[in-house]
Amino acid sequence: MIHSLSLSDVLADHARSRPRVTAVVDGDLRITYPELDDRVSRLAAALAGLGVSGGDRVVWLGRNAYAVLELLLACSRLGAVCCPANWRQSQDELRFVLTDLTPAAVVWEPSEAVEALRDHGTTWIRAGEEYERLISGTVPREFPQADDAEPVLALYTAAFGGRPSAALLSSAALVAHATSLLVVRQMEPGFTFLNNGPLFHVGTMMFCLATLQIGGTNVFTPAFDPGEVCRLIDAERVTQAFLFGQMIDAVAEANADGKYDLSSLRFVSHSAEWDDMITVDDSPWCRSKMGGYGQTEVGGMLTFLGLAEGGAGFAGRPSPLVQVRILGPDGGEVPAGEVGEICARGKTLFSGYFARPDLNAEKTKYGWHHTGDLGRREPDGTITFVGPKLRMIKSGAENIYPAEVERALKTHPAVADAAVIGVPDPDWHQAVKAVVVLDAGATATPDELMEHVRTALAAYKRPRHVVFADTIPKRGFTPDYDALDEAHGGGNYPGS
Amino acid sequence: MIHSLSLSDVLADHARSRPRVTAVVDGDLRITYPELDDRVSRLAAALAGLGVSGGDRVVWLGRNAYAVLELLLACSRLGAVCCPANWRQSQDELRFVLTDLTPAAVVWEPSEAVEALRDHGTTWIRAGEEYERLISGTVPREFPQADDAEPVLALYTAAFGGRPSAALLSSAALVAHATSLLVVRQMEPGFTFLNNGPLFHVGTMMFCLATLQIGGTNVFTPAFDPGEVCRLIDAERVTQAFLFGQMIDAVAEANADGKYDLSSLRFVSHSAEWDDMITVDDSPWCRSKMGGYGQTEVGGMLTFLGLAEGGAGFAGRPSPLVQVRILGPDGGEVPAGEVGEICARGKTLFSGYFARPDLNAEKTKYGWHHTGDLGRREPDGTITFVGPKLRMIKSGAENIYPAEVERALKTHPAVADAAVIGVPDPDWHQAVKAVVVLDAGATATPDELMEHVRTALAAYKRPRHVVFADTIPKRGFTPDYDALDEAHGGGNYPGS
Repeated sequence: MIHSLSLSDVLADHARSRPRVTAVVDGDLRITYPELDDRVSRLAAALAGLGVSGGDRVVWLGRNAYAVLELLLACSRLGAVCCPANWRQSQDELRFVLTDLTPAAVVWEPSEAVEALRDHGTTWIRAGEEYERLISGTVPREFPQADDAEPVLALYTAAFGGRPSAALLSSAALVAHATSLLVVRQMEPGFTFLNNGPLFHVGTMMFCLATLQIGGTNVFTPAFDPGEVCRLIDAERVTQAFLFGQMIDAVAEANADGKYDLSSLRFVSHSAEWDDMITVDDSPWCRSKMGGYGQTEVGGMLTFLGLAEGGAGFAGRPSPLVQVRILGPDGGEVPAGEVGEICARGKTLFSGYFARPDLNAEKTKYGWHHTGDLGRREPDGTITFVGPKLRMIKSGAENIYPAEVERALKTHPAVADAAVIGVPDPDWHQAVKAVVVLDAGATATPDELMEHVRTALAAYKRPRHVVFADTIPKRGFTPDYDALDEAHGGGNYPGS
Repeated sequence: MIHSLSLSDVLADHARSRPRVTAVVDGDLRITYPELDDRVSRLAAALAGLGVSGGDRVVWLGRNAYAVLELLLACSRLGAVCCPANWRQSQDELRFVLTDLTPAAVVWEPSEAVEALRDHGTTWIRAGEEYERLISGTVPREFPQADDAEPVLALYTAAFGGRPSAALLSSAALVAHATSLLVVRQMEPGFTFLNNGPLFHVGTMMFCLATLQIGGTNVFTPAFDPGEVCRLIDAERVTQAFLFGQMIDAVAEANADGKYDLSSLRFVSHSAEWDDMITVDDSPWCRSKMGGYGQTEVGGMLTFLGLAEGGAGFAGRPSPLVQVRILGPDGGEVPAGEVGEICARGKTLFSGYFARPDLNAEKTKYGWHHTGDLGRREPDGTITFVGPKLRMIKSGAENIYPAEVERALKTHPAVADAAVIGVPDPDWHQAVKAVVVLDAGATATPDELMEHVRTALAAYKRPRHVVFADTIPKRGFTPDYDALDEAHGGGNYPGS
């Protein structure tokens, strides 16, 4: 076990190496690394006292809070698995989570949906006073070293066959992924991250854990509120927050009067107003386009745009800690330029879905994790994300991937967002229909948009129908295609 | 094996993700990543054909060359272990290496010492033509995925009991360590490293492998030649070379006429002339003082000064991928401020010494790797390296660690280098004796130096004797204390 480094171990080292550094800020609460280490030891001991043991699941049902990180670290110390669930879900969806995960304990914040679940048989610990009493009333305890290859975090994702599955991530995978962010974002000690995106989503969680890894400060806020984000950036000298697209516009607008000093934020260039408020960062993560290709099952990011500046592929190049292959249905590698499934191996990969043995076998066939997404290796070695494998439109004999069409539409200056579905077509089986959101105040006609994509897309890929909408429904970062199909008459998909 | 990422896997991914990037430059030889991948597959197949199989050792006996990296990668592909040995050693020392490691193959460059060993029973492959014939004459072959937890590199170090031992490093440890350098040195794609230090030493090897990890370019030169280093920096737009202290002075002097453009080098500030020639780098590795505390057994660096700017400890803070504890003889943690043994766990640690079961058990007692070095945790959590555990001077009842005294002496402006030994003393059992090298043209008397350290050191630690020498004999980066004792009358050490 000399090579093991669990999240609990990372904390234990910071408690010694960074005795004066603030680990966590949440409202009036400020916790140093030694204090966090002590609280986590107490919490782990308390959970053990309530019967939670190695491999058991502990669920968080609430908004963002310091307790999410503490629960995750206590689970790591215990060898248990922490699942911050999406508490915004309906009562039925939340009941599915409890039935699926059979948690040994649930820490909860009151809400209508959660209150209705209290008949579910498990240990219920109310966030706030009861949670704090548990910590203060328990003596810290030494636990045997946890194996960093064991799962420690469960995040629901991947609604295969209509029901979501909990992706299990080990400490080893989370530490490796955090380190890849340290590399690409060039994070340093002193990094302060504002957790204003949902912690049940890997996009926020991955930066929370990278901040932990480098011994920085995690600031928690219950949810995204542009004014509060401004206040916290100023007050806590925040280095980075969970912001993109319209969230950035909202923050810039909230600070239009310059009330708050946002210069500590080192982030991507966005608009003239924004760039004046913040410090534009020159790390590979921020320098040109942020992001890459990722999914919960790879710990967050599999490829980074920042590792492929000027590259042809829209997804960049692989993280230094993974391998990527574009594989055909038979498990063989497809040649550069051809579309296949994006497959991966490496240090950041998940350990399978909780209680889904058949799905897990299917996802790891031929010894590679199959992402369920299609991609292409470009001649310069960079990778293009083509679209979800299960979301393909068939028009005539041709395969059309929505993401490709959406990308072309979004290059029009008036388009704020776009999603593409397939609708039944008497001649071609399906036809491409685009649902487009225009920028506030901008105008464009369907004909203009169809004309705009003419050079970028082959004729069979071009939308035959364009409708305008106020917003695109989302599931995480991708369009909610089921909702779009229902609202805009999608159907006749291949295999359906 | 979905989580495994061997050095061979890193290469296989670069061959796809970086088809146009130059991986290796050595003299007239330029090899892209796909070419390197192909050559390594051929070399692995050729070695397998010669009977080398999983776990076998392959030794390199020669100067720095592209073949060292190729052999290491081919061993990774095969599951074998590559040992670049210090070919400057005497014939007896080299024979010890062959007897100890019992390699299945030796790739060699002619030298008097090596020629004399050719009676040793193994497969001898001469570097250059024979090696190239082997590669060109063999068909590349697919090998089953190697387990990244298996050893792949052996580096001789740690002369416990007078004989060196081969530290075994796995792909997992080397990849983790390389990633820690990517973080602290903020290495990016395009990084070009000049391998001008010896590849049998972890100090050069670790940057060679970090450069591989990020998909950069490794430039090889047989040995350190200041003029050639200048030429190569200019010609290959080198980002970093293996340079420190007097090596930097020598390079600056070799380029005093400004013949070569060294501006591609992003490195530490050193002298006015030097800073004018290069680009002073602001990564944590280069920003203030370079380095930290390290040893071969931890993959290179265990702690980094760049993670503890302004910290009290001379060794900085731990790498993000390890834990460090200061332990007492009973395995318990000693309080901050007290001296104990520097111990470690984590992703970068070695897998033990080759064929030294007793030593390995001793080094991993209480579940922690014992570095054999003494250190102290400072109140701010940073770590101070106090000195080798086995190199302690006892004067009166007091323990004196040479490194502490040496550090104080080196703060005198006239002192270029210093080493401290214990000499027999009739009253105090031992007395401290300093061997000092003065800067060229500088003068200082023994009394001046003794006076200089008065404020920094307690009375019992101050040198009672000071002698001057032209140079301090070294073993790697540390003084060769055995040689110093012999030359300057050292003795009466505790336990001897």
